[in-house]
Amino acid sequence: MTGSRRLRIASTLTGALLLGATTVRAEEESGGELSPLQRAALGDDSAWALVESLVTEVGPRFAGTSGDAAAVAWAEAKLRALGFPKVWTEAVTVPRWVRGGASGHVVTPWPHEVRLLALGGGAGTGDGGIEAEVVGVAGLAELEALPDEAVSGRIVFLSQRMERTGSDWRGYAEAVPIRTQGPALAASKGAVAALIRSVGTDSNRLPHTGGTRFPEGVAPIPAAALSAPDADLLERLLARRGPVRFRLELGCRFEGEAESANVFAEIPGATHPDEVVLLTAHLDSWDVGRGAQDNGTGVAIVIEAARLTGLEGGRAPRRTLRVLLTANEEFGLSGARAYASARGDEVASHVLGLEADSGAGAPLGFRVRFAPGDPDAAVELAARLAPLGLPRLSGEARGGADLGPLVPRGLPLVDVDLDRSAYFDVHHTDNDTLDKIDPENLRRIVAAYATAAEWAANRERRLTPVPAPDPEDRP
Amino acid sequence: MTGSRRLRIASTLTGALLLGATTVRAEEESGGELSPLQRAALGDDSAWALVESLVTEVGPRFAGTSGDAAAVAWAEAKLRALGFPKVWTEAVTVPRWVRGGASGHVVTPWPHEVRLLALGGGAGTGDGGIEAEVVGVAGLAELEALPDEAVSGRIVFLSQRMERTGSDWRGYAEAVPIRTQGPALAASKGAVAALIRSVGTDSNRLPHTGGTRFPEGVAPIPAAALSAPDADLLERLLARRGPVRFRLELGCRFEGEAESANVFAEIPGATHPDEVVLLTAHLDSWDVGRGAQDNGTGVAIVIEAARLTGLEGGRAPRRTLRVLLTANEEFGLSGARAYASARGDEVASHVLGLEADSGAGAPLGFRVRFAPGDPDAAVELAARLAPLGLPRLSGEARGGADLGPLVPRGLPLVDVDLDRSAYFDVHHTDNDTLDKIDPENLRRIVAAYATAAEWAANRERRLTPVPAPDPEDRP
Repeated sequence: MTGSRRLRIASTLTGALLLGATTVRAEEESGGELSPLQRAALGDDSAWALVESLVTEVGPRFAGTSGDAAAVAWAEAKLRALGFPKVWTEAVTVPRWVRGGASGHVVTPWPHEVRLLALGGGAGTGDGGIEAEVVGVAGLAELEALPDEAVSGRIVFLSQRMERTGSDWRGYAEAVPIRTQGPALAASKGAVAALIRSVGTDSNRLPHTGGTRFPEGVAPIPAAALSAPDADLLERLLARRGPVRFRLELGCRFEGEAESANVFAEIPGATHPDEVVLLTAHLDSWDVGRGAQDNGTGVAIVIEAARLTGLEGGRAPRRTLRVLLTANEEFGLSGARAYASARGDEVASHVLGLEADSGAGAPLGFRVRFAPGDPDAAVELAARLAPLGLPRLSGEARGGADLGPLVPRGLPLVDVDLDRSAYFDVHHTDNDTLDKIDPENLRRIVAAYATAAEWAANRERRLTPVPAPDPEDRP
Repeated sequence: MTGSRRLRIASTLTGALLLGATTVRAEEESGGELSPLQRAALGDDSAWALVESLVTEVGPRFAGTSGDAAAVAWAEAKLRALGFPKVWTEAVTVPRWVRGGASGHVVTPWPHEVRLLALGGGAGTGDGGIEAEVVGVAGLAELEALPDEAVSGRIVFLSQRMERTGSDWRGYAEAVPIRTQGPALAASKGAVAALIRSVGTDSNRLPHTGGTRFPEGVAPIPAAALSAPDADLLERLLARRGPVRFRLELGCRFEGEAESANVFAEIPGATHPDEVVLLTAHLDSWDVGRGAQDNGTGVAIVIEAARLTGLEGGRAPRRTLRVLLTANEEFGLSGARAYASARGDEVASHVLGLEADSGAGAPLGFRVRFAPGDPDAAVELAARLAPLGLPRLSGEARGGADLGPLVPRGLPLVDVDLDRSAYFDVHHTDNDTLDKIDPENLRRIVAAYATAAEWAANRERRLTPVPAPDPEDRP
């Protein structure tokens, strides 16, 4: 270990502590010699080159668009070119949601054009648009408490701000319900449309899109996210005397379904080919931005972790490494559901799931979800990740959205925790572009994923399925 | 002086030094007791309230638009409400340039939509748009060196990056010629359109607009600025093999002229009413953003400096304080030219010009342009600005763009230098909004302007016109 690397790791540990991630036995587990695999990963910019290629040669790739089809073709060709011995696709049906045009204007008390983006799943306004008075609420609780007659026929504006938090998802988890549930709640109370403050931590005139949900029985209404400065403006206008009227035009609509695909690549295990280490990342992106950190980096991380583990170094892994690049994570988990549906029975033979879908901030540590019958596994992995300065963090691994359907079936998990404090500046916005990615962070993340994959693939004893917890043990 | 204020001023001085602003006798001149005027200014958020009002009740106010007319009405009403004894407008004819729609797409080697804004003064493309191969150059010199046949029929892309500099204008001054002169140079070599990397220091998908110039004899071509991440993309595409084709549609056009106005407010001098301290800021803005720092803060600074100096404290100034809010600085200096044309002969009676048009960063120091016959003036002013922690900086004051036509007529000047290191993140973009303004900085800037205005208005001996320099003394 060089002096400068030691310094970086020390500062990363400090960062983890400052960011509130509780380390478990960090001191005992930090340090140690880098493995040849880790040295290779830390000296290799192939992951950055993969992201650069994807965002430059494909760009945005929302489910069902021509960009989505181009991304599937890109991934197949790239995986073959990298030397993966098995590469294939499996068809996935995805909804085809078209954004169309969008415009928003304050009409009274003073005219203003605002920047907004329709939320996926909301209704269009029709060509004539909608104009109505705005009723402002901080969040869901305040909206819930309003009598229906205060909402009916109006445009609801949910102004809750997302807090910038560190490595955890707390800020996002606290704010995102205004997007996912706010429009439906507004609709159930008779609102004609819903506006939200973008769920993000930046202050750019670039709204954050994302999906919203309308449960059975609640007819979708138009729903859009305002950029933070435009949400500020609307708050200031509502703070003045008199009504605020708003005009909204959204051309978004569903146009049936389209065919996309999950893209697979495998390096068969030399001795236990039926036992699978699953490395997954979603290939699709929202239609704004270029899908650089959501999720070009994830795609690059899992491909490179598998390639370095299984195709470099001259020794085939004992177990199979499977790369799964899923279709349409962003707007319904279509690929993940298709995998769970078609291959759910294989999960018992999956020894580990690793998902990459939270940007490319500095790695801070790891979490696990292992069976009680594998008591030494976490300690073993901690020893292997220690040279990268990545301590075991408190709490259990949860996987990402795409592994969600597999977790109840007992999939063992490792999460690599990243500094996400800047991720929600760009998440689901036009600003999700290559220039925001730090190549050094990306090398370190790949090294962490490769370490976990290599360990699970070559460990003497396989990691075993995690039994469902006794419901009485749940908090 | 409170402890915390002393601390702030100390850190500002350090900031000035770190930013490379050379201080002149800073140590001797720092410190001292705040004057009652300075205490009042530092305890008053009226300037922030003015900007808030302008951006909330008017917003963007590009010359000749309804927003421009609303801004003139806002300014007149606000100045009267603040108690200025004389408020009037003088009509100014401005060009009416209409942005229309804009779209840009990379066609080959891979399709991409890019974010761009037309440059003011460039031609429209017509409804069919323009599609051509892109020829990339770093800057003007490289374009100049290209043979015409390498440019003719093509779209020129100037990719020069603006360097982030501190309080000086160097980064901007070095980069802005690609915007002001690049399209004309491209046109003179037969290009069908010009694209530039935005002249700015951010990395947002928000292009920076601005004016471009076509000299007599060079027919305007379409010209647009790409956001920084889109300029990066185009550079990456050009670095690959094979031609890059681009499709550009710009709906911009001139639609004759419109009437706007310079807005005036005066506090007549008690003993020397014919001697004028001129405080000026442009009222117009570009049509993107809300004109918060360009130039809502400037408007607020000069109004508040005059109000605090002349209407608070119970004593009328000896000389006249004149606030001039100019029309159409951004796209041709129409108001400044009208003032110079109609009132040029009054300049001999102007004892000082103060212009505010460089955002709302922390104030760092001041510069002067005084006549050799006023040898003590700079030292006097330095003593008055010292309690604010604002040393005299090396170099001569130059005024802003609007004072430009008056400077050759001998107008004495004071410039308050601001930290502009973040200003070009938002300059001429959609991001020029209220949330980026620090109220504390704004209070300190107002205090500095008020100090200079009060001093020039009440000084025993008037500041005298500055003789034109002997041409042989020019560097």
